[in-house]
Amino acid sequence: MKYFITGGAGFIGSNLCDRILKNGHEVVVFDNFSTGLNDFLEISRKDKKFTLIKGDLLDTEQLNNAIIGSDFVFHLAANADVRFGTDHPSKDLQQNTIATFNILEAMRVNGIKKIAFSSTGSVYGEASVIPTPEDAPFPIQTSLYGASKMACEGLIEAYCEGFGFQSWIFRFVSILGERYTHGHVFDFYRQLLADPTELKVLGDGHQKKSYLYVQDCIDAILCAITHSNANVNIFNLGTDEYCEVNDSISWICEHIGVKPKRDYTGGERGWIGDNPFIFLDCSKIRSLGWKPKYSIKEGIIKTMEYLEKNQWVFEKR
Amino acid sequence: MKYFITGGAGFIGSNLCDRILKNGHEVVVFDNFSTGLNDFLEISRKDKKFTLIKGDLLDTEQLNNAIIGSDFVFHLAANADVRFGTDHPSKDLQQNTIATFNILEAMRVNGIKKIAFSSTGSVYGEASVIPTPEDAPFPIQTSLYGASKMACEGLIEAYCEGFGFQSWIFRFVSILGERYTHGHVFDFYRQLLADPTELKVLGDGHQKKSYLYVQDCIDAILCAITHSNANVNIFNLGTDEYCEVNDSISWICEHIGVKPKRDYTGGERGWIGDNPFIFLDCSKIRSLGWKPKYSIKEGIIKTMEYLEKNQWVFEKR
Repeated sequence: MKYFITGGAGFIGSNLCDRILKNGHEVVVFDNFSTGLNDFLEISRKDKKFTLIKGDLLDTEQLNNAIIGSDFVFHLAANADVRFGTDHPSKDLQQNTIATFNILEAMRVNGIKKIAFSSTGSVYGEASVIPTPEDAPFPIQTSLYGASKMACEGLIEAYCEGFGFQSWIFRFVSILGERYTHGHVFDFYRQLLADPTELKVLGDGHQKKSYLYVQDCIDAILCAITHSNANVNIFNLGTDEYCEVNDSISWICEHIGVKPKRDYTGGERGWIGDNPFIFLDCSKIRSLGWKPKYSIKEGIIKTMEYLEKNQWVFEKR
Repeated sequence: MKYFITGGAGFIGSNLCDRILKNGHEVVVFDNFSTGLNDFLEISRKDKKFTLIKGDLLDTEQLNNAIIGSDFVFHLAANADVRFGTDHPSKDLQQNTIATFNILEAMRVNGIKKIAFSSTGSVYGEASVIPTPEDAPFPIQTSLYGASKMACEGLIEAYCEGFGFQSWIFRFVSILGERYTHGHVFDFYRQLLADPTELKVLGDGHQKKSYLYVQDCIDAILCAITHSNANVNIFNLGTDEYCEVNDSISWICEHIGVKPKRDYTGGERGWIGDNPFIFLDCSKIRSLGWKPKYSIKEGIIKTMEYLEKNQWVFEKR
């Protein structure tokens, strides 16, 4: 099998790439390196079955050429920045919705019909049902990011119905682990490196969030693709637990042995569109036999260990 | 109040325009006349408070200039063609999703914060709950049209959260009545004008559909805008009944006194992505005091009467 991974030089994409190559398959990584890093492909690069194409999903000609001959698409490339969506309102539309349309068209034109897509628990907005199942009540979007990912899901589903595609759509909680360079653990650790006596925390610290360790995430993706065979396969991916931002801070501080003064910006939301409680019902993916090997706390510690050993990532961000 | 109506030269838009002018307000119609017709603005045109701008929502500069000074946007412009979505996959993305983003941006830049939007019952895909309420289970899209309208809804909702907009989102069943020039009554009547002895019917005729008369639709829209004041207001709009395509054919044939042989293409769906059962739960809009004045049958008869008196519309299609 030849897999085409968009965003394959990114955090999750590069880990997935390593894994798929290890499983003996061919991989083409397509990445514009807007957040992806060459260093993340250090292992993959050594494999003869690996091809890297530096390209942009908005360049349809380049994309159409690059995708020829692939059997299966992992579409992970995205603007994954939830928080600053309102600073540049067109970014999620361009890099998520339109980019996804371009991938679907490139697949259609080239007769490629299988796609796995990294969506997000943010599509549930502020869910009325918690833990939130895949068939939760029709959500109201609260961020441009969530809105764009829901738009991508809809496009993919319509291609399944209209053009006989098959899809696996994964609604992730926040993912943590090796090559993580974006999000709260990264931000907190960077702050504490600069000044271990003070930590600025968005909101009141009581926001309840879920996290999943990247290797668990990849296990789940591969499990679903192997064992779920509907036309449209939608799965929440997370752990069966959540933590408060304050818990996470305590684990981070304990791990590096600091006791900063916590300076809260206040309010139950860290920013406009921040969801004060994300907790997904993952019984559907668990029914396929998958379960996470790591708890949220263990995932955070593994992330800290990675960041400690790879402080160069702070230079590149 | 000055209302900006996109698609204001279209079927629903022009009827809305007439009504709003009659209520004493100013109206700017913005329409690219891809399906809108100058003839539909015959009444509005006589009003001093009416302005017509021929323009395209994909021309952002023109749009930004046209919208200046408006207080409220009715965004009705769309590619409303559900059936042929797969013939031109980018059309719904361009004319619905991106056009809606452009309107939202034009509003944001100009400090306009209220928008009413014509969505569709198609966003529910093949609903698992019938009659389908606004908070039905998270749908799976079955058409590029439905997917694009869901994308528009998400964008509008995100602008409400991120930029303090207020929105009224209407999920229509099929609308019928004066100036209707698109859909099954139009198609059947055109066929019967050409040959009253035979009628080609897509599917098996047992598809269950809902229809609403255009003036009832406009009453509902104005009722919701007046009486529902949340940040995001979502309403299904339809009657409390549905009919089979076969019922509809019988009413049409009875009305014009013909008995054609019905030639069914077969299958429970008329085309790929056709929904064999659309029936919306409209108790939310009814709780505001609105109810339709006309039944589905009456709406179809009124539509036939319009088409009989205005056969020129067949020339223009």
